[in-house]
Amino acid sequence: MHGYFDHNATTPLAEAARRAWLEAADAHWHNPSSLYREAGGAKRLLEEAREELAALVGCEPNRMVFNSGATEANNALYRHLADTLSADEKVAVSAVEHPCVRDAARASLGARVLEIPVDRDGVLSLEALSSILEKEKISLVSVMATNNETGVLQPWREALEICRRHGASLHCDAAQWFGKLPPSALAECDFVTASAHKFGGAKGAGFIILSDRFRDFTCQRGGPQESGHRAGTENYPAVASMVAALRELQPRLSSVAQSQAASRDRFEECLLQGLPGSVILGAAAPRLWNTSLFLVPGPRNLRWLTRLSARGFAVSTGSACSSGKNNPSHVLEAMGRSFEEMGQVIRVSGGWDTSSAEWEALAKAIQGVGKELEAPGKPEHTGDTVSLLDPDPDLFTK
Amino acid sequence: MHGYFDHNATTPLAEAARRAWLEAADAHWHNPSSLYREAGGAKRLLEEAREELAALVGCEPNRMVFNSGATEANNALYRHLADTLSADEKVAVSAVEHPCVRDAARASLGARVLEIPVDRDGVLSLEALSSILEKEKISLVSVMATNNETGVLQPWREALEICRRHGASLHCDAAQWFGKLPPSALAECDFVTASAHKFGGAKGAGFIILSDRFRDFTCQRGGPQESGHRAGTENYPAVASMVAALRELQPRLSSVAQSQAASRDRFEECLLQGLPGSVILGAAAPRLWNTSLFLVPGPRNLRWLTRLSARGFAVSTGSACSSGKNNPSHVLEAMGRSFEEMGQVIRVSGGWDTSSAEWEALAKAIQGVGKELEAPGKPEHTGDTVSLLDPDPDLFTK
Repeated sequence: MHGYFDHNATTPLAEAARRAWLEAADAHWHNPSSLYREAGGAKRLLEEAREELAALVGCEPNRMVFNSGATEANNALYRHLADTLSADEKVAVSAVEHPCVRDAARASLGARVLEIPVDRDGVLSLEALSSILEKEKISLVSVMATNNETGVLQPWREALEICRRHGASLHCDAAQWFGKLPPSALAECDFVTASAHKFGGAKGAGFIILSDRFRDFTCQRGGPQESGHRAGTENYPAVASMVAALRELQPRLSSVAQSQAASRDRFEECLLQGLPGSVILGAAAPRLWNTSLFLVPGPRNLRWLTRLSARGFAVSTGSACSSGKNNPSHVLEAMGRSFEEMGQVIRVSGGWDTSSAEWEALAKAIQGVGKELEAPGKPEHTGDTVSLLDPDPDLFTK
Repeated sequence: MHGYFDHNATTPLAEAARRAWLEAADAHWHNPSSLYREAGGAKRLLEEAREELAALVGCEPNRMVFNSGATEANNALYRHLADTLSADEKVAVSAVEHPCVRDAARASLGARVLEIPVDRDGVLSLEALSSILEKEKISLVSVMATNNETGVLQPWREALEICRRHGASLHCDAAQWFGKLPPSALAECDFVTASAHKFGGAKGAGFIILSDRFRDFTCQRGGPQESGHRAGTENYPAVASMVAALRELQPRLSSVAQSQAASRDRFEECLLQGLPGSVILGAAAPRLWNTSLFLVPGPRNLRWLTRLSARGFAVSTGSACSSGKNNPSHVLEAMGRSFEEMGQVIRVSGGWDTSSAEWEALAKAIQGVGKELEAPGKPEHTGDTVSLLDPDPDLFTK
């Protein structure tokens, strides 16, 4: 592959995370809740990992719950709310939350879920949030740290202040933040969720930071693990890999952010110059250093994706969790984009070690695909990817 | 360590499972729901793994849902029932189910959970089951395949027939069955759950087998993964390790069962001869080949456990999910054992490659601990395990 530009979907396992997983799986695989010596050793390591991760993200260790990832956590939060809110309490959810927040909220609370709009750049409207909190009895607000499709940073700090004034809890899905930006004051939120595989850790691991408001939160019953918040044999190898990945990245964050943002910005300049009709989305808002969401000319973004894949570039048409022609992006919809534009969208998301040459090569490849698609009758560049061209529509609804 | 005898709590990662995890994590870490070539490759491998596992356990691939393990699955089942059963429908749960079934059922359905008793050997009473199904409107019955504490095989086949006659679904927690016994007709049940780490696969992986009755089952929302049954980025490395582990074990099952049962039986003979006052529990019932649950003379089983640990043997006082002085075994209680006897219980559970020498050495070590504890005033054999002797009681309530 010439360039992997889908880090917002998942990341390769970091070398340090791989080592940590193997060491744990080979030497400390014992059940941390058992009582012989080796189990005690695994328990100690698990708690040390909790302390280290808590220190890295800036919270007390007893607020940190290990789980299988943000999708589990976000679903579990809304089931908990369905069990514990009184019938007249509502929640407010930003219009650009990940489907695992939006769908879980609606499934659990139905009409008690109010939507907070975003502007044309995809930034949460704080005025709308304030207005909702003044008019309605809102128990919890969900505002993600940064959007997975646009990379736009959300004003969660300001949202937290507004929530505090109204006595509401703030839930912050930070799956795209940890490992890319310093944790800042995220842990001041009441329910923070994350997934290890978004920052080089093993798949199937994640964490929740709980505030005192969620003291009674229990997502899985049947054992005393995770202080009773989540029963089930602890997955220490995956936890070890998660902590190792974050430990390695965090000191690099500011230098990476600077150099990668410069590469990404040059990429966007090239794109706008070399591909007439292209539009960068969310460009006026503060964004993650790794993400660029843009419209290509013409409505068939899947053809772009398959041609870029044939050239060795992995990009996406948005979130893997909502891609497909029957399920266009709710994020673009919330940003006031048309149904047609949803078919023109491409997301690229680089990594910590993506080279400026890879960004440049991607810009050129996109330009090349644009020329190819402009020229009707010209044979298509298929290479050995015939099966990926015009893929079976069923592929996208599975 | 001289002998690891806690396989019912968790198992070491099998060599084949380790290789499969690494290969997947190194080469096929891409998001299977993305659309470029490498993601398509990961998707294909994931579906091949589903087909292979389905063939190994005897079900159609479209009935197989990958998840994080049996605790998740059993909790999710009962939340689903809470959402879908009508108010007059009840469930019946065997008295020896794992806490993740019992506690989840009670949390979700409260007084609508009826208990099916077991006999003094811990075997489900089919008469009681029939009687409950005749008298009450039972929608689902939970009968585990084999008990994690006693190793006693439950009559799930007969329970399934009885359920079918009454139109009830059968849920079978088979966490202790797969990898130890042939899958038999387990897949005929309506909701079957399992965890990879109980048979040499990676922690944090498991599967559910769904029947048509659970077509609408959704445990995590927010994406089309797992045919909509469970949203969230697929954990292909863990799935690959799970399938590799079962692939290796299944052809060995009958020979392993024979040789290990012989070793376990000899162990029990030695125990009864060498340790007057010891009692094997569930001995009159058909049991797993690897498990022996017994009472030692005197009420302080934790002292036995720590002394055995100091001698290099890992055993347990029952389930890691319910051990602790404030939470004695509900399994022993259901078998009519006294509170005092619950403090005398030790569980040993061998593995596929446990040698007969290890079983013999364990019997001798237990005998040795018995003699040591018999002799008051004699200095205790502590070795370097001082911290494990008379452990902090808090350790067991966490």
